[in-house]
Amino acid sequence: MAAQPRDVVEQYVKLVATGPTSAIVDLYAADAVIEDPIGSPERRGHEAIGELYKALEGLERETELHTVKVAGNHVAAHFTLVSVTNGHKMTLAPIDVMELNDEGKIIKMRAYWGPEDLKMEQI
Amino acid sequence: MAAQPRDVVEQYVKLVATGPTSAIVDLYAADAVIEDPIGSPERRGHEAIGELYKALEGLERETELHTVKVAGNHVAAHFTLVSVTNGHKMTLAPIDVMELNDEGKIIKMRAYWGPEDLKMEQI
Repeated sequence: MAAQPRDVVEQYVKLVATGPTSAIVDLYAADAVIEDPIGSPERRGHEAIGELYKALEGLERETELHTVKVAGNHVAAHFTLVSVTNGHKMTLAPIDVMELNDEGKIIKMRAYWGPEDLKMEQI
Repeated sequence: MAAQPRDVVEQYVKLVATGPTSAIVDLYAADAVIEDPIGSPERRGHEAIGELYKALEGLERETELHTVKVAGNHVAAHFTLVSVTNGHKMTLAPIDVMELNDEGKIIKMRAYWGPEDLKMEQI
């Protein structure tokens, strides 16, 4: 049975904190497209998508899922990602929207966030 | 100067509580398209869009805006609508995403919510 949309997004937010890039990418269909944030160039396919998440590797990071809305195979999730590196703490709080296919894989992800949703501080 | 995306969504959520249908519809471009919730038939243009909001007329209602994310001319908003009629209270808490044109009018709106986000109770 295909993974349910709510479970997929919960898994996604968990893996953004704890997972290797490969586990995050595996939530996506092979020909998935992401736009993070909206307005930036689209990334298509596992290799291009993996480049985005590789930036997280080596960072101390944690995530908190605030809200999930499910409409059929479409989901919207509000969450916060905090990551720490070299004495800097970055906090990003987007709303990500995703469309899933019948196999429960993400085929499209678009992230709503702007400068006001990204905070950098020295620690 | 065109209205800013954040102001438009704040105005939208306010008018869903307090406004006449015409004021809500006026936030939309003439050929705007809405899908509320995602998966339901699209409504295109002011007349079809107005039919959705007319259902609110005559209800006691209030709204609360929880979160707004702005990415260029795209916005995502999490809010709650509570409405009361004939001894029933309805609570709906969607995430709406919108795309605005250069004039600050909404050209597309899609609402993320499902059965779990809609509560009905007798009061």
